[in-house]
Amino acid sequence: MDPQLDKLKFDSSGLVAAVIQDWQNGQVLALFWMNREAVEKTIATGKVHSYSRSRGRLALKGESSGHFEIVKELLTDCDRDALVIKVEQIAGACHEGYRSCFYRKYEPGAADWKTIADKVFDPNAVYEKK
Amino acid sequence: MDPQLDKLKFDSSGLVAAVIQDWQNGQVLALFWMNREAVEKTIATGKVHSYSRSRGRLALKGESSGHFEIVKELLTDCDRDALVIKVEQIAGACHEGYRSCFYRKYEPGAADWKTIADKVFDPNAVYEKK
Repeated sequence: MDPQLDKLKFDSSGLVAAVIQDWQNGQVLALFWMNREAVEKTIATGKVHSYSRSRGRLALKGESSGHFEIVKELLTDCDRDALVIKVEQIAGACHEGYRSCFYRKYEPGAADWKTIADKVFDPNAVYEKK
Repeated sequence: MDPQLDKLKFDSSGLVAAVIQDWQNGQVLALFWMNREAVEKTIATGKVHSYSRSRGRLALKGESSGHFEIVKELLTDCDRDALVIKVEQIAGACHEGYRSCFYRKYEPGAADWKTIADKVFDPNAVYEKK
Protein backbone atom coordinates (compact mmCIF):
# COMPACT_ATOMS: atom_id res chain seq x y z
CA MET A 1 0.00 0.00 0.00
CA ASP A 2 3.08 2.20 -0.18
CA PRO A 3 2.87 4.37 -3.32
CA GLN A 4 6.66 4.81 -3.39
CA LEU A 5 7.11 1.04 -3.70
CA ASP A 6 4.54 0.96 -6.50
CA LYS A 7 6.90 3.17 -8.49
CA LEU A 8 9.85 0.80 -8.28
CA LYS A 9 10.49 -1.24 -11.41
CA PHE A 10 11.15 -4.83 -10.46
CA ASP A 11 12.68 -6.95 -13.23
CA SER A 12 11.11 -9.98 -14.89
CA SER A 13 12.11 -12.04 -11.85
CA GLY A 14 10.48 -9.52 -9.52
CA LEU A 15 13.81 -8.20 -8.23
CA VAL A 16 15.79 -4.98 -7.90
CA ALA A 17 19.50 -4.73 -7.11
CA ALA A 18 20.37 -3.00 -3.84
CA VAL A 19 23.78 -1.49 -3.12
CA ILE A 20 24.48 -1.61 0.61
CA GLN A 21 26.69 1.30 1.64
CA ASP A 22 28.23 2.34 4.96
CA TRP A 23 26.35 5.48 5.95
CA GLN A 24 29.43 7.01 7.58
CA ASN A 25 32.45 6.31 5.36
CA GLY A 26 30.65 5.48 2.11
CA GLN A 27 32.25 2.05 1.68
CA VAL A 28 30.21 -0.25 -0.54
CA LEU A 29 29.55 -3.26 1.66
CA ALA A 30 27.51 -5.62 -0.50
CA LEU A 31 25.20 -5.95 -3.46
CA PHE A 32 21.93 -7.73 -2.74
CA TRP A 33 18.78 -8.64 -4.58
CA MET A 34 15.43 -7.66 -3.17
CA ASN A 35 11.89 -8.56 -4.14
CA ARG A 36 9.04 -6.31 -3.13
CA GLU A 37 8.52 -8.16 0.13
CA ALA A 38 12.21 -7.68 1.01
CA VAL A 39 11.90 -3.94 0.41
CA GLU A 40 8.73 -3.79 2.49
CA LYS A 41 10.28 -5.70 5.40
CA THR A 42 13.45 -3.60 5.19
CA ILE A 43 11.36 -0.44 5.55
CA ALA A 44 9.02 -1.85 8.19
CA THR A 45 11.77 -3.21 10.45
CA GLY A 46 14.58 -0.76 9.66
CA LYS A 47 16.87 -3.74 9.00
CA VAL A 48 18.01 -4.91 5.57
CA HIS A 49 16.26 -8.00 4.23
CA SER A 50 17.41 -9.55 1.00
CA TYR A 51 16.15 -12.14 -1.43
CA SER A 52 18.48 -15.03 -2.11
CA ARG A 53 18.24 -16.05 -5.73
CA SER A 54 20.03 -19.33 -5.06
CA ARG A 55 17.90 -20.27 -2.05
CA GLY A 56 14.74 -18.69 -3.44
CA ARG A 57 13.79 -17.10 -0.15
CA LEU A 58 13.77 -13.90 1.85
CA ALA A 59 16.38 -13.46 4.58
CA LEU A 60 17.01 -10.92 7.32
CA LYS A 61 20.66 -9.95 6.96
CA GLY A 62 22.39 -10.82 10.22
CA GLU A 63 19.77 -13.37 11.20
CA SER A 64 22.36 -16.03 12.02
CA SER A 65 25.39 -13.81 12.69
CA GLY A 66 23.83 -10.87 14.52
CA HIS A 67 25.51 -8.63 11.95
CA PHE A 68 22.44 -6.57 11.16
CA GLU A 69 22.35 -3.65 8.76
CA ILE A 70 20.41 -0.77 10.28
CA VAL A 71 18.81 1.39 7.59
CA LYS A 72 19.75 5.08 7.64
CA GLU A 73 18.71 6.15 4.16
CA LEU A 74 17.03 4.59 1.15
CA LEU A 75 17.61 5.93 -2.36
CA THR A 76 16.53 4.89 -5.81
CA ASP A 77 17.85 5.87 -9.22
CA CYS A 78 16.56 7.64 -12.31
CA ASP A 79 15.04 4.42 -13.67
CA ARG A 80 13.77 3.34 -10.22
CA ASP A 81 15.13 -0.13 -10.84
CA ALA A 82 17.99 -0.11 -8.34
CA LEU A 83 18.43 0.94 -4.70
CA VAL A 84 21.19 2.37 -2.55
CA ILE A 85 20.68 1.61 1.13
CA LYS A 86 22.91 3.50 3.53
CA VAL A 87 23.30 1.47 6.70
CA GLU A 88 24.97 1.17 10.04
CA GLN A 89 26.74 -2.17 9.64
CA ILE A 90 27.19 -4.30 12.73
CA ALA A 91 30.60 -6.07 12.56
CA GLY A 92 30.95 -7.08 8.89
CA ALA A 93 28.72 -7.53 5.87
CA CYS A 94 30.62 -10.42 4.33
CA HIS A 95 30.10 -14.03 5.34
CA GLU A 96 33.83 -14.51 4.75
CA GLY A 97 34.57 -12.29 7.74
CA TYR A 98 35.32 -9.03 5.96
CA ARG A 99 33.73 -5.65 6.60
CA SER A 100 32.80 -5.43 2.90
CA CYS A 101 32.18 -8.18 0.38
CA PHE A 102 34.28 -6.13 -2.07
CA TYR A 103 37.68 -7.08 -0.68
CA ARG A 104 39.29 -8.25 -3.93
CA LYS A 105 41.17 -5.81 -6.13
CA TYR A 106 42.10 -6.10 -9.79
CA GLU A 107 45.80 -5.68 -10.44
CA PRO A 108 47.01 -5.55 -14.04
CA GLY A 109 49.06 -8.61 -14.92
CA ALA A 110 48.25 -10.53 -11.75
CA ALA A 111 47.10 -14.14 -11.86
CA ASP A 112 44.30 -13.54 -9.39
CA TRP A 113 42.39 -10.76 -7.66
CA LYS A 114 44.30 -9.48 -4.62
CA THR A 115 42.74 -9.50 -1.15
CA ILE A 116 43.09 -5.95 0.15
CA ALA A 117 41.26 -6.14 3.49
CA ASP A 118 41.72 -7.84 6.84
CA LYS A 119 38.96 -9.89 8.39
CA VAL A 120 36.98 -8.16 11.13
CA PHE A 121 35.51 -11.37 12.54
CA ASP A 122 36.13 -15.09 12.39
CA PRO A 123 33.38 -16.66 10.27
CA ASN A 124 34.04 -20.09 11.79
CA ALA A 125 33.24 -18.73 15.22
CA VAL A 126 30.18 -16.80 14.07
CA TYR A 127 28.40 -19.25 11.79
CA GLU A 128 27.35 -22.66 12.97
CA LYS A 129 28.82 -25.56 11.08
CA LYS A 130 26.38 -27.24 8.76
CA MET B 1 43.35 -14.07 -21.83
CA ASP B 2 43.16 -12.27 -18.49
CA PRO B 3 43.02 -14.90 -15.73
CA GLN B 4 41.36 -12.44 -13.34
CA LEU B 5 38.44 -12.08 -15.75
CA ASP B 6 38.17 -15.86 -16.06
CA LYS B 7 37.39 -15.93 -12.35
CA LEU B 8 34.40 -13.61 -12.59
CA LYS B 9 31.02 -15.32 -12.49
CA PHE B 10 28.80 -13.88 -15.16
CA ASP B 11 25.10 -14.74 -14.78
CA SER B 12 22.99 -16.78 -17.19
CA SER B 13 22.73 -13.69 -19.42
CA GLY B 14 26.51 -13.27 -19.38
CA LEU B 15 26.39 -10.20 -17.13
CA VAL B 16 27.69 -8.90 -13.82
CA ALA B 17 26.37 -5.84 -11.97
CA ALA B 18 28.86 -2.98 -11.57
CA VAL B 19 28.51 -0.30 -8.90
CA ILE B 20 30.08 2.94 -10.13
CA GLN B 21 31.45 4.95 -7.21
CA ASP B 22 33.13 8.35 -6.99
CA TRP B 23 36.74 7.56 -6.07
CA GLN B 24 37.05 10.70 -3.95
CA ASN B 25 33.85 11.16 -1.94
CA GLY B 26 32.46 7.61 -2.19
CA GLN B 27 29.12 8.64 -3.70
CA VAL B 28 27.43 5.83 -5.59
CA LEU B 29 26.93 7.26 -9.07
CA ALA B 30 25.24 4.48 -11.02
CA LEU B 31 24.61 0.78 -11.30
CA PHE B 32 25.47 -0.75 -14.65
CA TRP B 33 25.50 -4.14 -16.26
CA MET B 34 28.62 -5.43 -17.92
CA ASN B 35 29.32 -8.44 -20.08
CA ARG B 36 32.84 -9.78 -20.39
CA GLU B 37 33.60 -7.55 -23.35
CA ALA B 38 32.51 -4.48 -21.37
CA VAL B 39 34.85 -5.43 -18.53
CA GLU B 40 37.70 -6.03 -20.97
CA LYS B 41 37.18 -2.69 -22.73
CA THR B 42 36.85 -0.89 -19.40
CA ILE B 43 40.22 -2.27 -18.33
CA ALA B 44 41.91 -1.78 -21.71
CA THR B 45 40.80 1.84 -22.15
CA GLY B 46 40.57 2.95 -18.51
CA LYS B 47 37.06 4.22 -19.20
CA VAL B 48 33.84 2.54 -18.07
CA HIS B 49 31.95 0.63 -20.73
CA SER B 50 28.57 -0.86 -19.94
CA TYR B 51 26.19 -3.29 -21.55
CA SER B 52 22.70 -2.00 -22.15
CA ARG B 53 20.19 -4.77 -21.58
CA SER B 54 17.44 -2.81 -23.31
CA ARG B 55 19.53 -1.95 -26.36
CA GLY B 56 21.45 -5.22 -26.34
CA ARG B 57 24.78 -3.55 -26.99
CA LEU B 58 28.00 -2.32 -25.47
CA ALA B 59 28.43 1.40 -24.86
CA LEU B 60 31.27 3.65 -23.77
CA LYS B 61 29.86 5.75 -20.94
CA GLY B 62 30.14 9.37 -21.98
CA GLU B 63 30.31 8.57 -25.68
CA SER B 64 27.65 11.13 -26.57
CA SER B 65 27.94 13.48 -23.57
CA GLY B 66 31.69 13.52 -22.99
CA HIS B 67 30.94 12.57 -19.38
CA PHE B 68 33.47 9.77 -19.19
CA GLU B 69 34.17 7.71 -16.11
CA ILE B 70 37.91 7.29 -15.64
CA VAL B 71 38.74 4.07 -13.80
CA LYS B 72 40.75 4.43 -10.61
CA GLU B 73 40.14 1.07 -8.94
CA LEU B 74 38.33 -2.13 -9.78
CA LEU B 75 37.05 -4.44 -7.04
CA THR B 76 35.04 -7.64 -6.98
CA ASP B 77 33.19 -9.34 -4.17
CA CYS B 78 33.39 -12.64 -2.30
CA ASP B 79 31.27 -14.39 -4.94
CA ARG B 80 33.06 -12.63 -7.83
CA ASP B 81 29.70 -11.90 -9.41
CA ALA B 82 29.60 -8.13 -8.86
CA LEU B 83 32.02 -5.23 -9.33
CA VAL B 84 32.72 -1.91 -7.67
CA ILE B 85 34.46 0.53 -10.01
CA LYS B 86 35.87 3.65 -8.40
CA VAL B 87 36.01 6.40 -10.97
CA GLU B 88 36.75 10.01 -11.66
CA GLN B 89 33.38 11.18 -13.01
CA ILE B 90 33.38 13.93 -15.59
CA ALA B 91 30.35 16.23 -14.99
CA GLY B 92 27.54 13.84 -14.06
CA ALA B 93 26.77 10.14 -14.36
CA CYS B 94 23.03 10.52 -14.86
CA HIS B 95 21.42 11.20 -18.22
CA GLU B 96 18.86 13.31 -16.32
CA GLY B 97 21.58 15.82 -15.49
CA TYR B 98 22.44 14.76 -11.96
CA ARG B 99 25.84 13.89 -10.59
CA SER B 100 24.49 10.53 -9.41
CA CYS B 101 21.61 8.47 -10.75
CA PHE B 102 20.58 7.90 -7.13
CA TYR B 103 18.94 11.27 -6.55
CA ARG B 104 15.58 10.03 -5.22
CA LYS B 105 15.08 9.47 -1.51
CA TYR B 106 12.44 7.42 0.26
CA GLU B 107 10.49 9.39 2.84
CA PRO B 108 8.00 7.53 5.03
CA GLY B 109 4.44 8.50 4.24
CA ALA B 110 5.27 10.45 1.10
CA ALA B 111 3.39 9.89 -2.14
CA ASP B 112 6.55 9.80 -4.21
CA TRP B 113 10.33 9.57 -3.90
CA LYS B 114 11.84 12.96 -3.16
CA THR B 115 14.48 14.51 -5.42
CA ILE B 116 17.39 15.41 -3.14
CA ALA B 117 19.98 16.67 -5.63
CA ASP B 118 20.41 19.59 -7.99
CA LYS B 119 21.30 19.07 -11.63
CA VAL B 120 24.93 19.60 -12.52
CA PHE B 121 24.30 19.92 -16.26
CA ASP B 122 21.41 20.53 -18.61
CA PRO B 123 20.62 17.26 -20.41
CA ASN B 124 18.81 19.11 -23.20
CA ALA B 125 21.99 20.99 -24.01
CA VAL B 126 24.22 17.93 -23.75
CA TYR B 127 22.30 15.27 -25.61
CA GLU B 128 21.17 15.70 -29.16
CA LYS B 129 17.46 15.53 -29.74
CA LYS B 130 16.34 12.32 -31.33
